[in-house]
Amino acid sequence: MRLSRSFLPTFKENPAEAQIVSHRLMLRSGLIRQTASGIYAWLPAGLRILRNISQIVREEQDSVGAQEVLMPTLQSADLWKRSGRYDAYGPEMLRIQDRHKRDLLYGPTNEEMITDIFGQIINSYKELPQTLYHIQWKFRDEVRPRFGVMRGREFLMKDAYSFDLNYEAAVASYQRMMLAYLRTFQRLGVRAVPMRADTGPIGGELSHEFLILAPTGESGVFYDAALEGQDWLDTPVDVTDPAALETFYKRVTTPYAATDEMHDTTAWEAVPEERRREGRGVEVGHIFHFGNKYTKAMDVSVVGADGERLYPEMGSYGIGVSRLVGAIIEASHDDNGIIWPDAVAPFKAVIINLKAGDETCDAVCEGIYNKNTEDFLYDDTSDRAGTKFANADLMGHPWQIIVGPRSAKEGRVELKRRATGERHDLTVDEALSLVLAGA
Amino acid sequence: MRLSRSFLPTFKENPAEAQIVSHRLMLRSGLIRQTASGIYAWLPAGLRILRNISQIVREEQDSVGAQEVLMPTLQSADLWKRSGRYDAYGPEMLRIQDRHKRDLLYGPTNEEMITDIFGQIINSYKELPQTLYHIQWKFRDEVRPRFGVMRGREFLMKDAYSFDLNYEAAVASYQRMMLAYLRTFQRLGVRAVPMRADTGPIGGELSHEFLILAPTGESGVFYDAALEGQDWLDTPVDVTDPAALETFYKRVTTPYAATDEMHDTTAWEAVPEERRREGRGVEVGHIFHFGNKYTKAMDVSVVGADGERLYPEMGSYGIGVSRLVGAIIEASHDDNGIIWPDAVAPFKAVIINLKAGDETCDAVCEGIYNKNTEDFLYDDTSDRAGTKFANADLMGHPWQIIVGPRSAKEGRVELKRRATGERHDLTVDEALSLVLAGA
Repeated sequence: MRLSRSFLPTFKENPAEAQIVSHRLMLRSGLIRQTASGIYAWLPAGLRILRNISQIVREEQDSVGAQEVLMPTLQSADLWKRSGRYDAYGPEMLRIQDRHKRDLLYGPTNEEMITDIFGQIINSYKELPQTLYHIQWKFRDEVRPRFGVMRGREFLMKDAYSFDLNYEAAVASYQRMMLAYLRTFQRLGVRAVPMRADTGPIGGELSHEFLILAPTGESGVFYDAALEGQDWLDTPVDVTDPAALETFYKRVTTPYAATDEMHDTTAWEAVPEERRREGRGVEVGHIFHFGNKYTKAMDVSVVGADGERLYPEMGSYGIGVSRLVGAIIEASHDDNGIIWPDAVAPFKAVIINLKAGDETCDAVCEGIYNKNTEDFLYDDTSDRAGTKFANADLMGHPWQIIVGPRSAKEGRVELKRRATGERHDLTVDEALSLVLAGA
Repeated sequence: MRLSRSFLPTFKENPAEAQIVSHRLMLRSGLIRQTASGIYAWLPAGLRILRNISQIVREEQDSVGAQEVLMPTLQSADLWKRSGRYDAYGPEMLRIQDRHKRDLLYGPTNEEMITDIFGQIINSYKELPQTLYHIQWKFRDEVRPRFGVMRGREFLMKDAYSFDLNYEAAVASYQRMMLAYLRTFQRLGVRAVPMRADTGPIGGELSHEFLILAPTGESGVFYDAALEGQDWLDTPVDVTDPAALETFYKRVTTPYAATDEMHDTTAWEAVPEERRREGRGVEVGHIFHFGNKYTKAMDVSVVGADGERLYPEMGSYGIGVSRLVGAIIEASHDDNGIIWPDAVAPFKAVIINLKAGDETCDAVCEGIYNKNTEDFLYDDTSDRAGTKFANADLMGHPWQIIVGPRSAKEGRVELKRRATGERHDLTVDEALSLVLAGA
């Protein structure tokens, strides 16, 4: 994209309404605009990030056998009356009446709807397991929306739902999803630690939150350093083998990890002191097993091997896709702006033309840009060099390809890595091969 | 995807509630499920189609310089009060109150919001032209939703908005978008004819509807056969050159084409009789120039070259993405089911294993499937051959790769083209190269 013709505004001033760094940087780097309290429009760069995150989430869901569907944003209140949650859900549910005075609501989550759809289609135990997910906008009518997309009202969420014949199979589905989550966050370039979460009235141990470590996080976190630096992408796990899943799951859940809500000082003190890590975290995912709560309440069953009716065991699995944009910034920024992980960045690189209008500079820049119009941003504006550098740092492109008149004559550019600040004087080809290698 | 493990239900019976063929076939081939009146969930095959269409729409919008954003589904009523449309819009607007009794609405269209965002960011004539689009769910509270996704309430639309400095530039934007639309529909594998549409109180000639020809269409259409068989993908048009755009535009708009609403019998009789084509059509797109109606009403201006305030000229450009799924089926089906154009099909091909469990059949099928797990559906079920054939025809995969025990031993398969019914006895490699060539 050519910056001079694009809808990629940046702002020098910190917006008064933004209290946390990710909100400030998202507004200043032109990712979002607020259109109503807690409701945002995504500008071109922001949408690219949202789509990059969604695509990684999608691929990792698919890779553990989950199937993508797309449920609507509006739901019939009748569905929620069947589960008993319509009256129980508080004022965060946005209730709506249509022109015929029928009660609708803007879905805050989809357990009821997916259970109903599942029940209309799946009849036999032979068709289990099934895990379905969608990536769709949700609405929660927060009393005080704040922190930008971190606590907005209309937000993008991936929610998955598993249906299994019995508890053991449901545990395997839960474990598969944990693996998918660890791989997803690793690919997104952030460290997200799974922490045991409160299961509420249902009980059991099958509930984990995933927290990205960031100093501004809303929860205190305590974890064993054994959880650091694990490579889940390179850990082969046969997701069709319950024993392999169990081994993997033990490895993840044995070391201590808890938020302050669930903190257990006795267990904590059993962790060798040099391995104790304390900090703060932002919740970006939550996985939860809840048995046959919804299938029973909504009377959705399948026929078992002996003709009996069975209520499938369910789990639900959420990732806050729009929230992740803010959370990643909280974890990855400096005083000059955002530092996008490569996989998430709206553009792989920005080409900075230090002398737009200079024949050689233009030719070198155009040459690089024309081969990479999709993935590169080309700063072809007549702004001063200082402005261009500041904008590039603010927007957080992983690489800056800096083209000045002197070096351009020799077919050379300066390549700057945003994360480290390292700069290298390279030929165009050397620079491109580094950038396109991804890191 | 393996059919045995997938959420791809098919139904033999025609659903009683469906009055038109696309609605029947979408329900029977498991693309959608109704979750409330006029509101649908998209199952895996349906979502794939929706995404294929969206991607083609996106690429053609991008190729004429439009930039993608994503506006939220819910809008503040204040925005619509600024334009004066809040009270004017009828009961099709879904009006909502949040917990603080603030008026919101579910966006039926986005002129107000995009004008407001544009006004916050663009200040100078130098930053024009700008064309922004998004692909987002909209809601219109139809009094009697029917015909499935053809007249649903929650629907997916691509809507683009152009901002230009003056009328001449706005005409060029309009013409660019017409080119993008013709290319989009051609890539989708359907013939969509642009027809002059009523511009209402604003007047002028710059409004066209795009109709897909289908016997069940809601409008009568009359057009000159000169509009048939034009290849817009192979017509190079320099979209930065107004003269080239004008030449292209004349070529499209000179031959007669009108819906019954706008039909002009005198002009029609001037078309040579052998070139007159009459039929019915389904509207799938609409482009519209409306000048500075919204920028004036909402007081959104830019600074001109001499420091004066100018109200940009706008156009809006819609494509009914979810409606297109139904419209394409209306135009492309037979008694056995859907006939998907290659570019839209949820799967490029289905592999039909005529004897699941037979070692040779399984090996040949797995060999083909493992190379194409993303794009091929593998019918690995134990259903009878007749059921598999019927399902494949119903779902409308462009190709069927039929693997039977006898031919499999010789490494051969039968390849059936859904659109023509032609069958060929081929080696696996020959079959795959035909399928992967795309047509």
